[in-house]
Amino acid sequence: MTATASLADRVVAGEQAAIARLLTRIERRSPGVDEVISALVRRAGRAHVVGVTGPPGGGKSTLVSALAAQYRRAGRTVGIIAVDPSSVLSGGAILGDRIRMSALAGDAGVFIRSIATRGAPGGLPRAALDAVTTLDAAGKDVVVLETVGVGQAEVDVITAAQTVAVVSVPGMGDAVQASKAGLLEVADVHVVNKSDRDGAARTVAELTDMLRLAPPAPGQWQVPVVSTVAATGEGVGDLIERFDGHRAWLADSGEGQRRARRTTAARIRWIAEQLVADRLRAGHPDFDRAVDEVTERGGDPVAAARRLVQRGLGAGAEDAAAGSDPPDSDPAGSDPEGSARR
Amino acid sequence: MTATASLADRVVAGEQAAIARLLTRIERRSPGVDEVISALVRRAGRAHVVGVTGPPGGGKSTLVSALAAQYRRAGRTVGIIAVDPSSVLSGGAILGDRIRMSALAGDAGVFIRSIATRGAPGGLPRAALDAVTTLDAAGKDVVVLETVGVGQAEVDVITAAQTVAVVSVPGMGDAVQASKAGLLEVADVHVVNKSDRDGAARTVAELTDMLRLAPPAPGQWQVPVVSTVAATGEGVGDLIERFDGHRAWLADSGEGQRRARRTTAARIRWIAEQLVADRLRAGHPDFDRAVDEVTERGGDPVAAARRLVQRGLGAGAEDAAAGSDPPDSDPAGSDPEGSARR
Repeated sequence: MTATASLADRVVAGEQAAIARLLTRIERRSPGVDEVISALVRRAGRAHVVGVTGPPGGGKSTLVSALAAQYRRAGRTVGIIAVDPSSVLSGGAILGDRIRMSALAGDAGVFIRSIATRGAPGGLPRAALDAVTTLDAAGKDVVVLETVGVGQAEVDVITAAQTVAVVSVPGMGDAVQASKAGLLEVADVHVVNKSDRDGAARTVAELTDMLRLAPPAPGQWQVPVVSTVAATGEGVGDLIERFDGHRAWLADSGEGQRRARRTTAARIRWIAEQLVADRLRAGHPDFDRAVDEVTERGGDPVAAARRLVQRGLGAGAEDAAAGSDPPDSDPAGSDPEGSARR
Repeated sequence: MTATASLADRVVAGEQAAIARLLTRIERRSPGVDEVISALVRRAGRAHVVGVTGPPGGGKSTLVSALAAQYRRAGRTVGIIAVDPSSVLSGGAILGDRIRMSALAGDAGVFIRSIATRGAPGGLPRAALDAVTTLDAAGKDVVVLETVGVGQAEVDVITAAQTVAVVSVPGMGDAVQASKAGLLEVADVHVVNKSDRDGAARTVAELTDMLRLAPPAPGQWQVPVVSTVAATGEGVGDLIERFDGHRAWLADSGEGQRRARRTTAARIRWIAEQLVADRLRAGHPDFDRAVDEVTERGGDPVAAARRLVQRGLGAGAEDAAAGSDPPDSDPAGSDPEGSARR
């Protein structure tokens, strides 16, 4: 228990090296990380978690930098988690963006980390949620979750946020706007960034018209459209006011509690999905028999899967170990990647 | 049983409308689709399933068109499944490419379909595999599975293929080559497309050098590097010879059987993962209690997920229905999207 508890304690104390180390473990799904997150979930819940999403090319990284700088000027501490879905091929692109955030580099009140995962289903959204929980438990006032809105996993990531900003840029055209439907549904605030460009007024008008088609019921949130020029900081103060307004509405309306429940449901579902995937990947004996049956003897794969799930996949070696806390084997501070990748 | 069996029978008879209708149902995960696929799995296994993957911009669509045309000239029938991972945002991009395949448009020996899914984990790879099984059972001699190699789900898709071609283009640079590691591992054949461009010889040399670092053991497959200019058809005949050579090696070496087993394992795993996800999404009573416990009373989410999986998630309404075949409710031929989206 000691080593695990102490990593959680050190994260809660805001120790940068401990935070970096835990984030690396989350990304790698290292043994024992689940227990640390379980301990932190109970100690999180104070931060305002803001999601910033939208298609590539919207200047999201610059906007997130500008938000962080503005929050810092107001005396609030900030954590940034940038989810990198394309790392399989373009590894480092977002990390490159991070380097441009050098204005924030020496500031201990800002923690920046880009995360990527490969592997089990739910891996990326779950890692993002665990990373948010880590920075929340570490005492950051605001946690900004930046994600490119491409693919279901990346859209799922936004489930971890309390307030979601969808970033558009002028002149993207009607077809693109329409196909963004998956993201538009989740917007609490629309941002038209690069609003000094031609066509900005038209994009704002299009979004406003679209929102007018489904006006909020009394007491519901009115989604605003905010114009920004992230590169100069224009409109960023206004944007933060809208975020704060949304947070106040979440608390007053009870919607905040509903979203917390939704986030918990997603968390448990992702953990359960990963457990099933891990057990089947590891070669559960019932699973191996099912594969033989279907491959060699023309068995029904759907019936086989149904039997596996119905029977439960428990009582593996992993469960036997789950009662006791696994030792936290690598000595404190030895994580080679933890601080380097911040 | 009748309606379900008849859709499977009509697919096996090669009826285009039935194939289109089933593919739409696969994409939507319509009720009853599992039973149709189970029936088709037993009747598939004759086609050569070729995966074509690689980063965006490699000219994969053009290459797949050229492959299809060449296969047709040799009298072989072809099915093409193009997996569109970015449809959430760029919906229609790949479909647009398909339209450029108009040279093949009037040919009943070619069936082309672009598929995309949102939703449960494993959704995209599973839909791709089910689509491949459909075209295989429908009697296509070759099924080409085209996928952009971005993201884990898209890499997983390739599990459905027997022979995997990874497409590179000249001048992509060392960094990109290195970061493609996730794809390079799965290549049975390397294709350098657009090989009339500057730098083609260097890209071929780099790939050849890389392959030389890990020479195959005796009896193992020697991964070739093939140069093509898809736009003119240059090298496409040679590429098909390599595919055929790989297929013969699969049969002779026993590797084909090993891959069939791997594909079955992935299929059962994806079905099991979706079953778990569906049941948790639908609000399983044990799940709802777990969410309450964690949200309201600071319970441990990892322990909650572990209990859910261990206990098994069976005996829902879905399982009660699984014994009997669900009625195939929409009348034959009524699928509005089926043929339009081909």
